[in-house]
Parts: sequence; C-alpha cells; structure tokens
Amino acid sequence: MQKPDGVARRHDPSQKSFASDNWAGAHPQVLAALATANGGHQPAYGDDVYTERLQEVFREHFGPRAAAFPVFNGTGANVVALEAVVPRWGAVIAAGTAHINGDECGAPEKLAGAKILATPTPDGKLTPELVDTHLHNFDGVHHAQPSAVSITQSTELGTVYTPDEIAVVCERAHRLGMLVHLDGSRLANAAASLDVPLRAITTDVGVDVVSFGGTKNGLLFGEAIVVLNPEAVHDLGYLRKMTAQLASKMRFVSVQFEALLADGLWLRGAQQANAMARRLAAQVAGIDGVRVARPVQANAVFAVLPRPAAEGLRQRHSFYDWDHSAGEVRWMCSFDTTPEDVDAFAADVEHEMQRLRQPRRQDAGPA
Amino acid sequence: MQKPDGVARRHDPSQKSFASDNWAGAHPQVLAALATANGGHQPAYGDDVYTERLQEVFREHFGPRAAAFPVFNGTGANVVALEAVVPRWGAVIAAGTAHINGDECGAPEKLAGAKILATPTPDGKLTPELVDTHLHNFDGVHHAQPSAVSITQSTELGTVYTPDEIAVVCERAHRLGMLVHLDGSRLANAAASLDVPLRAITTDVGVDVVSFGGTKNGLLFGEAIVVLNPEAVHDLGYLRKMTAQLASKMRFVSVQFEALLADGLWLRGAQQANAMARRLAAQVAGIDGVRVARPVQANAVFAVLPRPAAEGLRQRHSFYDWDHSAGEVRWMCSFDTTPEDVDAFAADVEHEMQRLRQPRRQDAGPA
Amino acid sequence: MQKPDGVARRHDPSQKSFASDNWAGAHPQVLAALATANGGHQPAYGDDVYTERLQEVFREHFGPRAAAFPVFNGTGANVVALEAVVPRWGAVIAAGTAHINGDECGAPEKLAGAKILATPTPDGKLTPELVDTHLHNFDGVHHAQPSAVSITQSTELGTVYTPDEIAVVCERAHRLGMLVHLDGSRLANAAASLDVPLRAITTDVGVDVVSFGGTKNGLLFGEAIVVLNPEAVHDLGYLRKMTAQLASKMRFVSVQFEALLADGLWLRGAQQANAMARRLAAQVAGIDGVRVARPVQANAVFAVLPRPAAEGLRQRHSFYDWDHSAGEVRWMCSFDTTPEDVDAFAADVEHEMQRLRQPRRQDAGPA
Amino acid sequence: MQKPDGVARRHDPSQKSFASDNWAGAHPQVLAALATANGGHQPAYGDDVYTERLQEVFREHFGPRAAAFPVFNGTGANVVALEAVVPRWGAVIAAGTAHINGDECGAPEKLAGAKILATPTPDGKLTPELVDTHLHNFDGVHHAQPSAVSITQSTELGTVYTPDEIAVVCERAHRLGMLVHLDGSRLANAAASLDVPLRAITTDVGVDVVSFGGTKNGLLFGEAIVVLNPEAVHDLGYLRKMTAQLASKMRFVSVQFEALLADGLWLRGAQQANAMARRLAAQVAGIDGVRVARPVQANAVFAVLPRPAAEGLRQRHSFYDWDHSAGEVRWMCSFDTTPEDVDAFAADVEHEMQRLRQPRRQDAGPA
Repeated sequence: MQKPDGVARRHDPSQKSFASDNWAGAHPQVLAALATANGGHQPAYGDDVYTERLQEVFREHFGPRAAAFPVFNGTGANVVALEAVVPRWGAVIAAGTAHINGDECGAPEKLAGAKILATPTPDGKLTPELVDTHLHNFDGVHHAQPSAVSITQSTELGTVYTPDEIAVVCERAHRLGMLVHLDGSRLANAAASLDVPLRAITTDVGVDVVSFGGTKNGLLFGEAIVVLNPEAVHDLGYLRKMTAQLASKMRFVSVQFEALLADGLWLRGAQQANAMARRLAAQVAGIDGVRVARPVQANAVFAVLPRPAAEGLRQRHSFYDWDHSAGEVRWMCSFDTTPEDVDAFAADVEHEMQRLRQPRRQDAGPA
Repeated sequence: MQKPDGVARRHDPSQKSFASDNWAGAHPQVLAALATANGGHQPAYGDDVYTERLQEVFREHFGPRAAAFPVFNGTGANVVALEAVVPRWGAVIAAGTAHINGDECGAPEKLAGAKILATPTPDGKLTPELVDTHLHNFDGVHHAQPSAVSITQSTELGTVYTPDEIAVVCERAHRLGMLVHLDGSRLANAAASLDVPLRAITTDVGVDVVSFGGTKNGLLFGEAIVVLNPEAVHDLGYLRKMTAQLASKMRFVSVQFEALLADGLWLRGAQQANAMARRLAAQVAGIDGVRVARPVQANAVFAVLPRPAAEGLRQRHSFYDWDHSAGEVRWMCSFDTTPEDVDAFAADVEHEMQRLRQPRRQDAGPA
Repeated sequence: MQKPDGVARRHDPSQKSFASDNWAGAHPQVLAALATANGGHQPAYGDDVYTERLQEVFREHFGPRAAAFPVFNGTGANVVALEAVVPRWGAVIAAGTAHINGDECGAPEKLAGAKILATPTPDGKLTPELVDTHLHNFDGVHHAQPSAVSITQSTELGTVYTPDEIAVVCERAHRLGMLVHLDGSRLANAAASLDVPLRAITTDVGVDVVSFGGTKNGLLFGEAIVVLNPEAVHDLGYLRKMTAQLASKMRFVSVQFEALLADGLWLRGAQQANAMARRLAAQVAGIDGVRVARPVQANAVFAVLPRPAAEGLRQRHSFYDWDHSAGEVRWMCSFDTTPEDVDAFAADVEHEMQRLRQPRRQDAGPA
Repeated sequence: MQKPDGVARRHDPSQKSFASDNWAGAHPQVLAALATANGGHQPAYGDDVYTERLQEVFREHFGPRAAAFPVFNGTGANVVALEAVVPRWGAVIAAGTAHINGDECGAPEKLAGAKILATPTPDGKLTPELVDTHLHNFDGVHHAQPSAVSITQSTELGTVYTPDEIAVVCERAHRLGMLVHLDGSRLANAAASLDVPLRAITTDVGVDVVSFGGTKNGLLFGEAIVVLNPEAVHDLGYLRKMTAQLASKMRFVSVQFEALLADGLWLRGAQQANAMARRLAAQVAGIDGVRVARPVQANAVFAVLPRPAAEGLRQRHSFYDWDHSAGEVRWMCSFDTTPEDVDAFAADVEHEMQRLRQPRRQDAGPA
C-alpha cells in the first residue's frame, strides 16, 4: 500500500468509534484548504493573508469587535485565555466537570497560576447562584480572588446552555467584577443544538473571550481564542507566544478555520454529530436494561448499562467510563458519524444485553 | 478562484522569500501523508498507529533507545524538554544567541521557571570553557543551579558544531552533573552540512534530549522531543500534556514526521536549503560593498551591506536585520528555495549596490 | 510614653481578642531568647550555632531522622513542603477547608503550580475513603497526578485527628504512591489535646513532612519544615531559598524555636489555649440561644448565635464569621488567653443574648 | 550559662566578621522595640497600630505618596516588587551583578516568571546607554518585553549611584515605557555615603518602587517594599500574600522599622559601616602586595591579595571570594563593626603578607 515516495496507510478508514469526537480525522474540505494555502512563501507568525482574511470570517460570526488568535489545541486556548482574564492573584470559577479543572493536567495552575474554584453542578452548568457560592472569597488578600467565570458550551456532560442561561451568568459575573471565559471546544454543537448563530451564545449575551474549537469539528488541529470584549481582554499576542501557542506557519491553522467557518461546514458537521447522538440515544433508550443518563443536547450520549455488557461491548468498541462505580459510560458522535455507524453500534449494545439476559441457556448445556 | 465549497487561494505560490525558513509552506509529500492518515477514527493523544510507527522511524535515526514525543512547535519542544532536565531550582547554560534565550518571549522562564544563563559566544557555539564560566554558580542554594546545557545545532548564527565539538560539551556537562539538551530546529541542516547521520551529532556524542525540528524543513507544523537518555530524562508524557503540547489528533503530526524521515525527504530538503545558502553567499560575496559576515555552514547567510542598499532591497524582499547598528542582515534559504530564486535575489542585491555607486548620475540630469 | 532613642508603645497590652491565635504577641521567654542569640556575628543562612543546636531539639521531638528547615511563615512552609512532594505535574489532595486551599491566596498554585484537589469533609479531616474519591485521577496524563495528601492537625475546624486516623490516611496515601504532608500550624494544640508527644501524630504514623507552626504558639514569627522521611523528601535547601523563605539572620528564627521546644513551653502554651477554648465552649453552651457548632478539640470554638447578638458583640470584640448564612462564628484562644479573658467574653455574649431576649422593654418606653 | 526556663548563649558576642553585613545581629534598640510592641493582642496581617504608624514614618522619608509593605526578606521584597512592575510576558533589565540575577536562586524567574536581562557593567551600575543595549528586544511578541529596570543602591560592587545617575536611568526607562525598581537592601549605606536623604535617591529622581532593606542595617529580619508611584505600581497587598511574604504578627516587623527609621538609627548604623569600610580600605591599601580593587563608596571593600595570604587569613576570619581566579575577595563592614575590629583585621592581613614575604626564614630553621 506504500505509495512512491510516500507513507503507507496503516489504518482502516471505514472504522469509526464512539470514544471521542477527537478520534475522527479531518474533513476533506479542510484538507483541501491546506493545499490551497500551500506553496510559495508567506509571512510567519500570523502576518499571512489567510490569517488576515480569517479576521473577517470571525467578525462575521462573532460581531465587528471580535479578534481571533489561532492556537494549537484546546488546553492552549484555555490557558492563554485565562492568562488574559485572571491577574497573578486570581482564581477562576468553573464547574467541577470543566475540562480546565479535570482534563488538562493542571495546565491552568501550572502554566498560568490560575486557581480553579471547582464547583459541583448537577448538569455541568454554572448558574448565578453557583457563582454566588464563592462570594466569601471576595474579601481581601487571603483568598485567590475570583476574577473570571469559565463556562463550557456545550458542557462536558453533553448539555447546552440556553442564551438566557449564559446571559444571567455573565450579568452576575460582571456585576461582581469578573470576566467570562467560554470554553467552546464544542461551541458549534451547542449552536447547532439551539439553532442559533454563534454570536447568540457568546457576543450577544456578554461573554468576554471564547476558546473556539476546531479540532473536534473537523480540523486536523487548531483552536482559536476569540476576544469579544477588547477593552477588558488584552495582550493575547504576548500571552500566546509566551505560552508556546504561536504557530510559525499560521496560514495552515487559519485556512482550516476559514474552510470550517466560511460556508457553513462548521454547522453541517455539528448538526450531523448532534443528530447521530440523538439517534443513538433513541435506539439505546429502547433497549431493556440500558438507561440514557443525561439529556442529549449535543453530541454526547451518557448511558448506564450493566458492567458485563459494557465489557462485552469493549471487545469491539472503544469508549470511556464516565462514572465507573455507577456503570455510566460516555459515547460521543462526530461530524463523520453516519446512521449506519450508529445503527451497528446500537445493535451491538442490544446484542450484549441479550447475552446478559440469557446467561443460563448458554451455560446450561443439554438437559 | 474560489473552489466549490472551498476556500480561495489568496497568495502567489511562485513568490519566495529569504526572510525565514518558516515562511515556506509544506512539502507536497507531507501534505500527501496527511491525506493518507485521514479518514476513519484513530485513538487520540498518541495511541494511534502512525505515532506507533513513528517510534520505529525515530529509532532508526537516533538509535534503539530513542523515544519521540511529537509536539506542536519549537518553543513547546524546548520548554517541555527543559522541564525534563531542569529541577525547580535549576538553570540552563545556553549561548546568548540561543532561541530559548531571545526568541521565545521568556517561555522557558515563564512556563518552566528555568533560568537561562546566557553566555556570550563568538559564533553561537558553546564550548567546555564557556560552560566553565558558570562554575561559580555550582555552590549552594543561592544560585539557580546549572542543571543542563542547551546547544543549538545548526546555530542561530548559521554555524554548525562538529560531532567532536558537541562531544566535548556533553562530556564537560556530564562531568559537572548536568544534562545536555540540543535545540535541533535545524538539526537536519547540520547533518546535511556535515554529511553525517542524525545520531552522529546527537546520540553518539552524548546528547540527552533533542528538540527535533520539522516545521523549518517542510512540515506544516510539528516538532518532536527525542529522548536519547531515558534513564535521565523522564516523564515527558506528563510534561507535554501539562504544557499544552499534546495533540489530540496526533496521527497528523506523526505522519508528517514519517513522511519527512522515512525515505530521506528530511535530508534532501536540508541539502537543498544549505546549497542555496552557499550559492547565495558565493554570489553576494562577489558584489563590491557586500560582505558575508559569518561562515555559511547551514542555510543562513549573514551579510553586511550599506543600509540604503538594504532598504532598497526591502522594496521587493522581506528579511530581517540581525544587527541594525552594524548593517548586518540575515537571509535564510528553505527546502524549496531554487537556484532561480537565489540568482534573482542576488541580482537585486547587485542592482541596489549599483544604484548606490551611481547616485550622482541619477540625480544630475542632462548637462 | 516615648523611651529615649526608642519607639512608643501604641497599644494596650491588657487587651485580648478571640479573633485569632495570631493576634497574640510573643511569649516573654521567646523574646528573651532573641536577646540571648543577639550580639556579635554569626554565619548567615543557617550556618549558625543556634540552627545547628535546633536540629538536635527537633530530633528529640520528631525522631533521629528528622531535619528542620526554619522558614518565615505558614504559607511559606506549606508551599516549600509541597514543592518537595509534588512533581511539576502533580496535585495535592486536601480538605476543602484546608488553609492551603482557601487561605493562602493560591500560593500553592501560583508559586509551586500545585493543583489542590479540594475535598469536602464534614469535620475538616481526610479519610482513606475521601482519598479514594480521587482514584479516577490516577490514570494517565490528562489529570494532574495526585502526588501528595495534605492534612491539617489540628484542623481548620478545631478538630483533632487521632494517631490512628492519621496512620490510615498515610497508609492509603503511600499505597497509592503518594506522600503525606501535614500542615501543623497548630500541631502543638493537637498534641496537647491528645496528650501525646509530637512524634506520635507525625513520625510514628507515617507522615513524610510537616509544616510545624511556631507563630500561633508564641513566636514573633517562624515556622519550620520538618522532614521526617528524608529518602522521599529532598532538596529543601534549594526549594526554601528559591521560594524566598531563607532567613539570612536565621539564628533569630532558630533560637525562638529552641525556646519554644527545649523545655516544654510549646506544650504549656498549647494546653493553655486548649483549656481556654474548652472553658469558653462550656460557658457559652450554657447560654440560651447559643449553640457550640463543632467539637472543641483544640483551641477553636465555633458557635452559632443570632446575628444581632454577634453584631452587638462586635462593638467590643473582633472575631470572624465562619459561615455567614448560618450565623456561625469562630472564636480562637491563644497561649496567653486567661480565664478572666474567657469569663469576660462569655459574659458579654450572655449580655448580648439578654438584650435580644428583651427587645420590647427597651423599645417601649413609659406609657 | 543556661538561664532558668531559657536557652543558652552558644556564641561569643565579642566576635565579629567581615564576611557579610548579615552576619551581624540586631541593634539593641531594635530588640527593645520588639518588647515595646509585645503583649496583648493586635490585629494580624498589618491591621495593627505599629504598621499604621509605620506608614507615617515612611512618608517622612520617601514623600507623601509613599506606601510601605513590610515583608520578610530581600528576595521576597524583590520578587513581590517585580511582580508589580512586570507583566506575565515581561523582562527586567538589571546589572549582571544584581542580587536578583545571581543570588536569589532564580526566585524572580521561578516565582514571578520574570526574565532577567543580565547586563555586563564595569561597576555594578546601569546607565541609559546600557539600557539601550536591550532596544532590539522592544519589538513584538518574540521577546520577553523589557518592562522594568532594576538597579541596586548601593551596588553589589560597593559603588554608589549619584542622584543624577539614577535620574537619567529613570528618565530613559520611563521614556521607553518601563518602570524602575530599586533594590535597596543597602540603600541606607548609599544615602549615608552621599549625605542625602533617602528620597533624594529614590522618590525625587523617579524611582517607582523600592525594596528597602532593614536586615543588613540592624533589624533581626525585615524588608519593606516602598511604593513611590502608586499610579503605576499596584496590588502589592495581593502580590505580597500570594508570594508568602505577609507576616501575621506584622507589628513585629513594623516596629523594628520604626525603631530604625524614626530617630536616625538607620543613618548612624550606615555611617558607621561605611566609615569602617573606608578605614579598612585605607589600612590594607597601605600593605605591600594588597590592592583595593574597586572604589569604596559604601560598606564593602574588594581587595586583591595573594591566594596564600587569603588562605592564611581564613584560618581566623570568614569572608567570601569575589573572583577566585583574580584573587579578589570581599570584606563587608556592618553597623556594629568597630575601629578595633578593623584594626585587628588589618593587622592580620599585614601579618599574612609578611609571612608570605619571608617564607624561607620560617621554613629554614637553625643551621
């Protein structure tokens, strides 16, 4: 399978997984965009024509004051954004389930010194009332001062904030002198779920800075920090560079985002992922002994099933435990998940449950 | 020029620059490799088949104990590598011209707390004697303890360490209880210049960990930290993640490196860049009033020319001042620089110098 | 009141407070020790004879392997100790009420990058089961790795771990590959409460490193990091210096600790503070409408009383709200709190409660 | 020698050293001030009456806008001050000999992320021209941005800036958008040397923030960050706390400074130390074979003498090598150095030189 002068394909491109939306590859249009931007020389570090054009694209989606700073990955986007909204002595109010709290190896603390005030939530969403549980920390030098609220849209639990729910959190945060960061590694899924433009859940409801995800929606790699409130959120250029998130050949990040955002590819991919999650949830909800554990509002399905069934399923499929003690697992759909993928997977779940229900017959042998 | 459902080409791919080797794009084989690795799902965060294969590729080049950790960019590679070789209270001996000292916005200090002991050198190269100038810092708690020596190959001044020159620095460093990091963002150019395999200037001469550059030699993006001394250099997995340098869709970093390394593309690109630098140096050295300021051992040419000539040249070409007061500029060649690019550029230099030599006639007008 | 060539006394030394044990001054014997160590020259930075002697004193209390590193304050002791037990990518399991979590302005995160895994507890004490709630974080690079457990003895809630309670936490921590730090800013109070030697709740039950408090037990200032497990806890000398906690005239820290520890002053002071807390709790528990909210095992009394009574009491006394919404306040006793201080304070509480009970009569006036 | 209930004196208070001014103890008036402030309870963390009074004292010396923040030690003062004047991406221009560069175990980098741009100087003093050598770093995101200039007064080389010399550095720094920090661990010695008030070399010439030293001029411990430009230097309260430099029983830091500053003790001590240094320099300059290597403008004497003489002298005296290869040593005088101490030391130098000059006779023995 080795091509002349090239590398061999080592994987089966027909194989899909429900492990995570970052197990998917890149959308063909995104790959094509790379070729478009390739060839010849372009200024490095963001002074290229594709990054220049990208600013217009982002302004179309996030409003005329938006400025985009492409970076490499989600942790990088979050850390740089937090550096911009949290002073040296600051803290960030976030849901306990937030990626910045549990899934970035402590990068916000270790690179930016940002203390995360992890807040238990029922559904991954902060509310003004939950923000208020940190009011006792607003009193002088002994506490890392809450300086920003960070919300995730769609959340790590597959739920989606309504525009109003974000607006009231922003309003409370601002009234308390804090800024609002939105971790939007799956912002596209949320917008698709709500059927609103991106700005309706960011710019228009008071968010100050967004980590806008590309990787999980069809890029090879790449996220963009989008500054929505330039009066309050500064110096991203320095912060990005000092945090090792400045790409030299930035045209290749920017042109991917252009491919994603310019003609609706972002939306179609997110709609597809969401639809597949709904399809999967509907199918497994009908299987006796399987319970869909949380509202399916984006591209994640959380299900509770007997552990032996989960283990059996794992013989053919990779996926993550969410709460091992409760038997809760997480299945993610991607922009390239198809109805056939879902149906085959749901059939495998059904098959495992059937095996569980008839253990005796298999074990018993002839009478 | 807009393709259906795609993005428009906004640049002229025939245009080249001598500003930096990161103004180049990607090698077509590298782009092709991305397509090979695309499609279907693969485990994220480096558990994919391309990253697995990449370990073999790196072992072929760096020896059987080598382990490669792909990251996003050079600053990221350097910072993560330094985190692995410098304790919390440690310092790094480096040339004053080192990229980690002057060109990473302080990321080593700001992300890793690594104090850089910047050391003046005539040619960008450390020696055992220069290492010894820091001996007075090896005495107790008051000084950040020199824990690593970091050398750049090829250097920021376009020079190349011989294998022996590296060996004696490593020997001195190890005898003093330090480890050796090599910033190899242009390691390929050095190996090509010396006509030796990569391990001859790394593994075989005592280097403990390498930042191996891909971006400047034809990748879209991507560097790899290569651990050569696994007994002494640990925990790269944690350090990479916490420094926001872990790619989720790592197959797309790894397969680029495979394309670069598996069949000699890395060497051909570096040889081309180096040859073009030699060609450029030879041509401009013949121009009256232009002086090649440093040995041309890799892909950089440093030249001194009258400032008005430099300014004239800038009307059509981008390049950087190296030492503004001395009139020294830097011209870099890339894997895709052609003899025609060089000849045209040198002709423009000649043209500017001619203009300088005949200022009167132009100003005077007919008698 | 100005003395010749001196400074004026500006406060009333008869005035005591129940606000915090760090509102007290220094024990006269501690002041006397400063004079003993004064005069002439002594090597700086801990090479003096008093610091040398102090090592013997600490070994008498903590066993023959103990090594003491005097520092300035509690936050400094905690941060340096955590730097020694947590790698760059590490996290610390601690009670949510822990001083390192809520009262050090994020210094562990900001100076050491240590992520605090704040754990809700009913009584300020960690248990093996609570440690186990973080087991899901022990799986690979995505989570800051739990590397240490930090417990506080006596706790911020005025409770005291038994030796067995500490032993089982240490056993669980060690089995999981973690080290144990003990924040002992009030370790003396715990030992006095349990009537055991200091080593019975530290060295003998598996603690690896202690922040031993002096300030709250009668020093002018000064804490000591006590390394109990020198195989596992290293490099305190470098860490202390780089964290700005190395006193140049260290004799003046060390001799204070000698005065505290050499002849039982530490124990007498702690016993006094504890006894006064018990006395205060007993008295206020007898007042109708006041409830002692938590077990009084050390020198803190937590009480719930009507807010108007608390506000009235604040006209003459300073103290802190613990839980404003619940009406819970904290009263601390110190080494120099006397029975008279307690009785007067309790009488004031009683007085305020009486005023509350008879509001009408005061307001009504003559008919 | 053990006092009842007390600690034993373990050192000879008649013994003095020329090793460092931090080998001295505390001035008796400073000790007396501690007793004055002791007794009873006072609010912690700086809300006490002595810290309140101290603000007036500092305003008398540094002008009506000055605000003092007592901290524990010099490294702490410097780090907190730099945190206030350097953004996350900032760098500090300092002399290569600066304490922040070479003697704080990298604390500025490790705690504050501040890159030090170490600048060679002939005499420990920065000039506008030396500041200008960093101009090439003022150009965009690739360089840690020079944000502050830090000067030391008196310098680590025993030299003293004139007011004008400081003024022109401040003027240049401000014009370039930088703030000026002055490390004044020996500011008193400089003021005494110049015979000017403290504000003449700080406030009046444009310094923005000072680390004002107490320890080396007769305190047990204690430095004060003095903010002179409150418009530009903010948030010291948070920075001090998060850097573990906030004393709980702050009255004991503040009252020491009051004793030092209120009636001229600071000046008398500095004058004495300076006079003793001049006396020592004059005496050793007259010894054949000994050379005073640098101007003696404060309390340090740098001398070059034959190594065997230095080693002989070390049998009875402790002192530091400054430049081992050049045979240069450093002798420091303190507030409590006496003429007798100097004369005896100089006699010992003379004695050692004599021994060197007559080696044969001593070795030969009788025939």
